[in-house]
Amino acid sequence: MAQPVRPLDPLAVRSAVAIALEEDRARHDVTTLAVVPAAQRGRAVLRAREAGVACGLAAARETFAQLSEQLAFVALVDEGATVEPGDALAEVSGPLAPLLQAERVALNFVQRLSGIATLTRRLVERAAAGGPARVVDTRKTTPGLRELERYAVRAGGAFNHRNTLEDGVLIKDNHLRAGEARGIGIAGLIREARRAVPHTLRVEVEVTDEGGARAAVEAGADVILLDNMSPAEMSGVVERLGGGRVLFEASGGITLETAAAVAASGVQLISSGALTHSAPALDVALDIVPGPEPASR
Amino acid sequence: MAQPVRPLDPLAVRSAVAIALEEDRARHDVTTLAVVPAAQRGRAVLRAREAGVACGLAAARETFAQLSEQLAFVALVDEGATVEPGDALAEVSGPLAPLLQAERVALNFVQRLSGIATLTRRLVERAAAGGPARVVDTRKTTPGLRELERYAVRAGGAFNHRNTLEDGVLIKDNHLRAGEARGIGIAGLIREARRAVPHTLRVEVEVTDEGGARAAVEAGADVILLDNMSPAEMSGVVERLGGGRVLFEASGGITLETAAAVAASGVQLISSGALTHSAPALDVALDIVPGPEPASR
Amino acid sequence: MAQPVRPLDPLAVRSAVAIALEEDRARHDVTTLAVVPAAQRGRAVLRAREAGVACGLAAARETFAQLSEQLAFVALVDEGATVEPGDALAEVSGPLAPLLQAERVALNFVQRLSGIATLTRRLVERAAAGGPARVVDTRKTTPGLRELERYAVRAGGAFNHRNTLEDGVLIKDNHLRAGEARGIGIAGLIREARRAVPHTLRVEVEVTDEGGARAAVEAGADVILLDNMSPAEMSGVVERLGGGRVLFEASGGITLETAAAVAASGVQLISSGALTHSAPALDVALDIVPGPEPASR
Amino acid sequence: MAQPVRPLDPLAVRSAVAIALEEDRARHDVTTLAVVPAAQRGRAVLRAREAGVACGLAAARETFAQLSEQLAFVALVDEGATVEPGDALAEVSGPLAPLLQAERVALNFVQRLSGIATLTRRLVERAAAGGPARVVDTRKTTPGLRELERYAVRAGGAFNHRNTLEDGVLIKDNHLRAGEARGIGIAGLIREARRAVPHTLRVEVEVTDEGGARAAVEAGADVILLDNMSPAEMSGVVERLGGGRVLFEASGGITLETAAAVAASGVQLISSGALTHSAPALDVALDIVPGPEPASR
Amino acid sequence: MAQPVRPLDPLAVRSAVAIALEEDRARHDVTTLAVVPAAQRGRAVLRAREAGVACGLAAARETFAQLSEQLAFVALVDEGATVEPGDALAEVSGPLAPLLQAERVALNFVQRLSGIATLTRRLVERAAAGGPARVVDTRKTTPGLRELERYAVRAGGAFNHRNTLEDGVLIKDNHLRAGEARGIGIAGLIREARRAVPHTLRVEVEVTDEGGARAAVEAGADVILLDNMSPAEMSGVVERLGGGRVLFEASGGITLETAAAVAASGVQLISSGALTHSAPALDVALDIVPGPEPASR
Amino acid sequence: MAQPVRPLDPLAVRSAVAIALEEDRARHDVTTLAVVPAAQRGRAVLRAREAGVACGLAAARETFAQLSEQLAFVALVDEGATVEPGDALAEVSGPLAPLLQAERVALNFVQRLSGIATLTRRLVERAAAGGPARVVDTRKTTPGLRELERYAVRAGGAFNHRNTLEDGVLIKDNHLRAGEARGIGIAGLIREARRAVPHTLRVEVEVTDEGGARAAVEAGADVILLDNMSPAEMSGVVERLGGGRVLFEASGGITLETAAAVAASGVQLISSGALTHSAPALDVALDIVPGPEPASR
Repeated sequence: MAQPVRPLDPLAVRSAVAIALEEDRARHDVTTLAVVPAAQRGRAVLRAREAGVACGLAAARETFAQLSEQLAFVALVDEGATVEPGDALAEVSGPLAPLLQAERVALNFVQRLSGIATLTRRLVERAAAGGPARVVDTRKTTPGLRELERYAVRAGGAFNHRNTLEDGVLIKDNHLRAGEARGIGIAGLIREARRAVPHTLRVEVEVTDEGGARAAVEAGADVILLDNMSPAEMSGVVERLGGGRVLFEASGGITLETAAAVAASGVQLISSGALTHSAPALDVALDIVPGPEPASR
Repeated sequence: MAQPVRPLDPLAVRSAVAIALEEDRARHDVTTLAVVPAAQRGRAVLRAREAGVACGLAAARETFAQLSEQLAFVALVDEGATVEPGDALAEVSGPLAPLLQAERVALNFVQRLSGIATLTRRLVERAAAGGPARVVDTRKTTPGLRELERYAVRAGGAFNHRNTLEDGVLIKDNHLRAGEARGIGIAGLIREARRAVPHTLRVEVEVTDEGGARAAVEAGADVILLDNMSPAEMSGVVERLGGGRVLFEASGGITLETAAAVAASGVQLISSGALTHSAPALDVALDIVPGPEPASR
Repeated sequence: MAQPVRPLDPLAVRSAVAIALEEDRARHDVTTLAVVPAAQRGRAVLRAREAGVACGLAAARETFAQLSEQLAFVALVDEGATVEPGDALAEVSGPLAPLLQAERVALNFVQRLSGIATLTRRLVERAAAGGPARVVDTRKTTPGLRELERYAVRAGGAFNHRNTLEDGVLIKDNHLRAGEARGIGIAGLIREARRAVPHTLRVEVEVTDEGGARAAVEAGADVILLDNMSPAEMSGVVERLGGGRVLFEASGGITLETAAAVAASGVQLISSGALTHSAPALDVALDIVPGPEPASR
Repeated sequence: MAQPVRPLDPLAVRSAVAIALEEDRARHDVTTLAVVPAAQRGRAVLRAREAGVACGLAAARETFAQLSEQLAFVALVDEGATVEPGDALAEVSGPLAPLLQAERVALNFVQRLSGIATLTRRLVERAAAGGPARVVDTRKTTPGLRELERYAVRAGGAFNHRNTLEDGVLIKDNHLRAGEARGIGIAGLIREARRAVPHTLRVEVEVTDEGGARAAVEAGADVILLDNMSPAEMSGVVERLGGGRVLFEASGGITLETAAAVAASGVQLISSGALTHSAPALDVALDIVPGPEPASR
Repeated sequence: MAQPVRPLDPLAVRSAVAIALEEDRARHDVTTLAVVPAAQRGRAVLRAREAGVACGLAAARETFAQLSEQLAFVALVDEGATVEPGDALAEVSGPLAPLLQAERVALNFVQRLSGIATLTRRLVERAAAGGPARVVDTRKTTPGLRELERYAVRAGGAFNHRNTLEDGVLIKDNHLRAGEARGIGIAGLIREARRAVPHTLRVEVEVTDEGGARAAVEAGADVILLDNMSPAEMSGVVERLGGGRVLFEASGGITLETAAAVAASGVQLISSGALTHSAPALDVALDIVPGPEPASR
Repeated sequence: MAQPVRPLDPLAVRSAVAIALEEDRARHDVTTLAVVPAAQRGRAVLRAREAGVACGLAAARETFAQLSEQLAFVALVDEGATVEPGDALAEVSGPLAPLLQAERVALNFVQRLSGIATLTRRLVERAAAGGPARVVDTRKTTPGLRELERYAVRAGGAFNHRNTLEDGVLIKDNHLRAGEARGIGIAGLIREARRAVPHTLRVEVEVTDEGGARAAVEAGADVILLDNMSPAEMSGVVERLGGGRVLFEASGGITLETAAAVAASGVQLISSGALTHSAPALDVALDIVPGPEPASR
């Protein structure tokens, strides 16, 4: 039943990593270039310091690769794997200078993406206890990192909502207010949307109560976003308006505590902005380890 | 005594906003282009939904400006201002379509940067209760957003550590391990650094105990980073090794709870990665409001 | 009932024009810089040399503007207007040197986009004679010019299909063959698509006969693309399978001659690749005209 | 006697393909990523559906390569080869998902470039029946694709005129009008051009009758462009003014019907804008074919 | 008779300045941001410290403008003007912080371009004493600055040779050697060039003695480059082979000492690589001056 | 005691070379594409025509590599090696056409960088005769080439000053004047700098006499730049103010003639702008040589 973890767009990773390395002036690391001879080789381990879900190793791999083609990176767990404190996530070996120049950038990616995957996994598990609703993300992502953060959400076991303003129609509160200002109600807006957008897109509408939901369903909306409604209210809406092709999405203030109840209301979708805008980083470190480099693989 | 809030590099803002708008395909917002007529005008307010420190209005201004030159953006509070739930941070007015196309990106910037400024302010206040140490950030920033996040740290009342690997020398644990592997100790590394780096840079060294600190001071280090040491240990180090030109920086696991004690130990600097890697977003919303646009200013 | 001509993304125009001017080395026009003194001023008219539909004046305006801020460009007809041989489309005035350096690039845009709008208008008129189906474009556009060519299609009076591979699901012949190779039929593919793609997208399936159409409708497809079927066959499909929420799209070999019959078959959508890949340029010229520049407006 | 088909600038191809893939969001193809497993492999054939001249396989190769390094592309005909309906132009094999993600973009390049090569070949053959004149292209190319379209012209058997406004001097009608406005005639403009442009360039002048041609020849022009003159008129000009180093170029309204007569007039050059601005696309398709992938070569 | 100083391509200046400011991290100037308050205003003068020819003020203007729109830049001399030690070249006024952040980059442009213009002027004056030959530059320019350096050459009073490898044909020594290796002599190479290159270009050939010159002239070359020949030898070549349409260019080891004799040999062109690859910088400084800013102009 | 020659940032080389090749339109070299068949192979030698220090071979290697992956480049001397007239610096072999297309750009890099390395070596040797001071460069570099020119300075045996305005604090004459204008003296400015800049940076101050030097030392400056002072004056300053941690840098008008005396004054640093802004190019040529290509290595 799980959505396959669609891999990252390699161009997005390459670009995000290039920007981050340039931002850190990694190739001008005055410390490492001064105290680590170019010829010195060694190996290091990427290690979790707390429990969570690993994610971002693809970005770490790319980071080391951009610094030196001679660095060998071996992932030791899968993206989306559950890890315990002390678990090794990956091993890097080769010339030590570029390895250390890349360290911080690689960790910045892994810590953030693992943080998102970890929070997502927890929310997915809580929701599953209540019912079969899909947990989905939102567009509340870090500017410049949407592709990577949506990937972390998938690695955590949830699904993606629309990616951009082009690949989904969502008539929101402000659209409704703008419509009211010119005397157009919810049904009129849905009709306008249908007429103007490509026929390949569904029409979703945000409402805040059952009356709004009913109006949207009757006007032919395909998906109804129930904004900040209680599980009880949503349960009533689903019971009275559901059953056809229309889908219901719960949104607003979903927490680990409320997820099960929300899922139990019968909605098909639960969206959470916190997955991407407020997940704390997972503590991950890079440690040089003694001993020989692994034989080439 | 406070560091002036050095303004953001406008090019960094322009670039980050352009990337974010392109990532969101804001100019291809099928919903807004379908249901908001090009000629419709109106105004909206950016409003805090929880208490905190406002930051990122410069990025919000740029976001609206990139969507339409006809949008007027008026900040209603200063960057770094304390805000309460319900406070209006800014007002935008003009054509509604581009206003709504820009909404999410503008909010994504303001929520993240205000989140960082808010957490920073809290840590700065706690530390100030213990002593006059400078709170500083780290390089544990979101890839692509370092310039903006360092700005949020300043807006929160703290100071910046080095920006990149080029504008500061920091000999860290992994450099020490790499040195050991070729038989060079802390004094040797400091010597190598002095010889190779431009004379405009100080040399900072990370140590984990008083022995390391002593070795670094004796070898002529300018700054000593005390990693994960207790306030009591640090207090002893400062008492026995301080007093000259050397500076001490506390780092590792600084929390709101421990900040005062750390500051009381006598270190001159306290650095915290959590300021940028784990600050939750501040809840901020954009609401269309009724009534006429303000007269042009 | 007509879809409003959604304006061009100004960034796409700016970028396409910048690429074209650089490609033509317009700022290094050795002829004009040699024989037209920098101080010489004048005016010129953009004039149709054959009948058609005008389009691309926005790109022409941008072209002249990039060469010199002192060039005034006044459109004399609307985008999408019907023009006769000799009609003036726009007037440009100011310094003659940049005007002539920009001439060819401006014309290249106008000729191509007007050619597309002209062919589109003809097909739309023919189809309208047969029934109310929407004429839509395809992704068979000129590499690098999709945004502009879709705009020309709208100016010609037709509608847009999906813009990219991200904002629409279309299971095509090759997907079906790939499915067969692993033992998955049309119903299985539709199920896989529903599970993986965001819930904001409809699912469209390409079929080549009524059997395929029936299978797709039964498996819950939202839109059925009828590929290279005769009007009579399509008429039967629509009669026997239509009536619910499902939409039918005719595609493949639509010509000015067949358009009315196709529309009369009852399909809701008619798509044509020729609109963008085979429209001949409309003949448009730029002529310097005598007399004074218009007074500033 | 034929000009060798100078190969495409690989950077231009790489850039045009990258823009086109990004424009199509090929790496975010929601359909293919949903219904074609990452591990599924297969092969497909690029096949002409009508007679013409093949061109653009280099761009198709690059398109598939940018999507996946694992796709093997084998051209089965040379660029510029004559093809019949059903002929296979190339074979692609490897993972099916990236193959299908790249399909449309690859076809868009091949269809357009083959269309240009096909029309060019026809014009070249017609002209050859009249005399030995070189058929050359113009700057009336699709914005952003000049390098590729000039290549298609060469593949069709014709030659290139100047590439940009920097590598050729052509005093055109509007330059002459601008000259008149300040009292400078054709001889004066030729003198000004000679003085200002690098000595590495010839000076070409556009004229519309024999009087203009005579004035230009007497003033020392190197090449005379005869605009929209009849074959009979041109024949007279060549007879009376030719014979020295000066070259004559026929231009304006050259068609398949008139090409032989124009060539017979004795001009050395025949230029045609229609080659690039009005060539219909050649119908080419990509079909997945059953059977094993070819053994690695 | 002088070639007009064709102005700089503004895009080239904008791009070169942007690269230089970024390279210098001018917007992150830690010193100025620390010790010059944002509100402090003032003015400064760009002043020559030695005699020479001023050039590059356009680049200086752009540099200050990119740092702040509030900086007013007023050129006090024309590009190409002769200046004496102490002469003021330009004045800048407005906020002092961006003014100082831009100082070094602005000076780097002015010093280099003025250095080239100064050396060029001297060579032009020396050559003029010998005869009317055109002094021209070469492609031996600083990577990335060709457009600007060619402009400095024009400001110094000389002319430009071809700009790139596309806008001129020059068969050089290595081409001749490559031809020999496959049994093709100078006449064969000239024939090959004529056949392949656009008809808009002349064919120039480099030779090292009169025999080579004669062969090239007989094979129809348009321009003969006489490489490292003495004035006496060149005089003989011109006397015996000149007189028709063919031009002669002296090249190789031209110095201020030899320029007059070379010009006296009768060649039409004298090219010098030293103009751009070895001109010492002109000493120019920027000094803050007391007193009020000038009233706005 | 010598600073190791820190290698070039490969991205900076790649970018500078790409810009230079594009600027020269090397891939559109009409001459070489016309007269050198694609299949012709051969070899060529990069040879010094005068004595000096070799530098820039890494850039030459990149230049040839960007033109063709089939070109083999073998450096025959180390970067920084002393060379005599006629010495071979490197050998390139493979297809001749791309080799010749790249020739000029490769030479432009090598000539300039070798010129800088040569002048630097001479100044370093002269200074060494006077004392152990470090010779350092300045920010007076060619716009766009700082990374490469700093590398040439290292290859010549000198050291680098700060790279950008971000990685060093230098309070210069204009900062002092701006300070005076608001009533802040040297001590106040040093205090402001200390408070605002990251603690990782030293504070350097420019002074013009002993009084200034004394004020700066007393205010806690880390480095004192002595601008345009005579060796005798500097000697007095060092004698009376030196001895602690403070460093002295001599700057302004350092020549080969004065370097030894300046070094003998006891300053630790000698900076020279002429190293990068006025070094004449070293004469280096590329010659096709007969004989077979070397066997593959």
